[in-house]
Amino acid sequence: MPELRKDYILDRWVIIASERAKRPHEFKKEKVKKKEGVCYFCPENENLTPEEIMRFPEKGKWEIRVIKNKYPAVKQEGDYTIKTHNEFYTFSDAYGSHEIVVETADHKKQLWDLDPENIKNILNVYIKRIEELSRIPGINYVQIFKNHDEAAGTSILHSHSQIIAYNKIPHIVESEVKNSKNHSNCVYCTIIQKEKDSYRRCYENKNFIAFTPYASRFPFEIWIFSKRHITRLEECELNDLSSIMNQILIKLKELNTPYNFMIHYSPIKEDGLHFHIEFIPRLTTWAGFEYSGTIINPMPPENAAKFYRGEN
Amino acid sequence: MPELRKDYILDRWVIIASERAKRPHEFKKEKVKKKEGVCYFCPENENLTPEEIMRFPEKGKWEIRVIKNKYPAVKQEGDYTIKTHNEFYTFSDAYGSHEIVVETADHKKQLWDLDPENIKNILNVYIKRIEELSRIPGINYVQIFKNHDEAAGTSILHSHSQIIAYNKIPHIVESEVKNSKNHSNCVYCTIIQKEKDSYRRCYENKNFIAFTPYASRFPFEIWIFSKRHITRLEECELNDLSSIMNQILIKLKELNTPYNFMIHYSPIKEDGLHFHIEFIPRLTTWAGFEYSGTIINPMPPENAAKFYRGEN
Repeated sequence: MPELRKDYILDRWVIIASERAKRPHEFKKEKVKKKEGVCYFCPENENLTPEEIMRFPEKGKWEIRVIKNKYPAVKQEGDYTIKTHNEFYTFSDAYGSHEIVVETADHKKQLWDLDPENIKNILNVYIKRIEELSRIPGINYVQIFKNHDEAAGTSILHSHSQIIAYNKIPHIVESEVKNSKNHSNCVYCTIIQKEKDSYRRCYENKNFIAFTPYASRFPFEIWIFSKRHITRLEECELNDLSSIMNQILIKLKELNTPYNFMIHYSPIKEDGLHFHIEFIPRLTTWAGFEYSGTIINPMPPENAAKFYRGEN
Repeated sequence: MPELRKDYILDRWVIIASERAKRPHEFKKEKVKKKEGVCYFCPENENLTPEEIMRFPEKGKWEIRVIKNKYPAVKQEGDYTIKTHNEFYTFSDAYGSHEIVVETADHKKQLWDLDPENIKNILNVYIKRIEELSRIPGINYVQIFKNHDEAAGTSILHSHSQIIAYNKIPHIVESEVKNSKNHSNCVYCTIIQKEKDSYRRCYENKNFIAFTPYASRFPFEIWIFSKRHITRLEECELNDLSSIMNQILIKLKELNTPYNFMIHYSPIKEDGLHFHIEFIPRLTTWAGFEYSGTIINPMPPENAAKFYRGEN
């Protein structure tokens, strides 16, 4: 069973994913081979994947397909209660569901090649999965994220994103909730107003705004916020959201950069966290300095914003 | 000037290192070329490096050489006071000194090829630099770390470590200090006692112990703690420290893994943080899930400890 563990004293959580465990010599550094040959995410190979959870459209040729992850980081087994043993050992079974969203049937297309309409369909699939997974007892957050390219943590080429629903609110989301509550109004509502008039503003439509954050961790990091104070993906106006995502993705394609995105919103039993999506391009590598706590980013967000606005 | 910035609401700090800034197209993903030809860290090329700070031994052929970093993340210029502007914008100049420690004159040797005696000499150089840098007004921490290989954040092959002395206590060190203070005795003193009898214990000598931490973030992550409660590198018994480092390095060489190490100890104006060194091999890549707060590690630390102990 995979296990969720907390650091002795820090609020730092790790899933020890024994399902993915290898023997030491298998970990030796080798160049990851891009998987050639059979693609398990392509149409006609549906029988090679783990259990299908849903597809869109339901009838005819599918465009989007949700399946169980073959090497899940969490499993719907065991005990989701977090316990502390012997003062410093805090743990539980890593409880939940780990799913793959195949974003297109077309092996040759990446998310950044898709139209806003396709992106909207993917967002609708996320909404359905969040709805269902949130109802499972013990699940405290449904984390939706994407890894594009090897340097962003995936070796599978066929365009896909992932869902990990589990028994812990991710540390960063938890901190955002906690720090939002320290203020009388939503802090992000205020921040959006300030960033709207800053050199970091990139795109805006009726319902959404995108800007490079003041303390960007990564070159070309960019965040999308809903302009109204909404706290769930299902409350979003999806035409505007998919349109602004598409604007960003086109520029990421221009950079041809590995990237991740993560959707942040109010945890199931909490409320008040302003809905947003963080895109982090992965052009730099964190080193020893970063892993002690301070991040070095060689690209000022004000310059990155110029790139997004097409000014350089 | 490089600038230190804090996230709008999170305790997350970034150095915007404008000295390293590039134009957008230069950031496009390209395979980093291993620098062939002239090595700036080799003997005979001393005139090609920035200012030399010290060398060991002082006379004759040097074995260790400390120089200024050509592309410093921090500079001894401007204002080191951290200020908050307009409620959400916390910043200062990124103030301090960024130095390179060339660990050997021999281009063909890595730190893991050196003898404990060589390692001891390097530790003595760190001690001298900490002593001098700590005296500079405005410097709050002297971070010593190493990046080995590209996946650990360096493209320079010649064995070296780095020192960044700056006006901020790194977030993780700060959290360790804060959480240490929540207990009446040193938490790490208690943890060491518990880990000594665990499956995670790897090496031990009179003054030091090494174990794989309970919530290891990385496969084969390993920490060295002094067994006595000491809080500074200069208080360490260096024969035992270099000997236990050497034991770890030999096994990292066997894995041929990129890795970082970071030295954690009491910040200049604080006291009480138990001295330790964290080694993090870099065989896995953090993805979107990790950057939301929970880390997936496919190697149970108990199995990693067996590898260090030579049991598999």
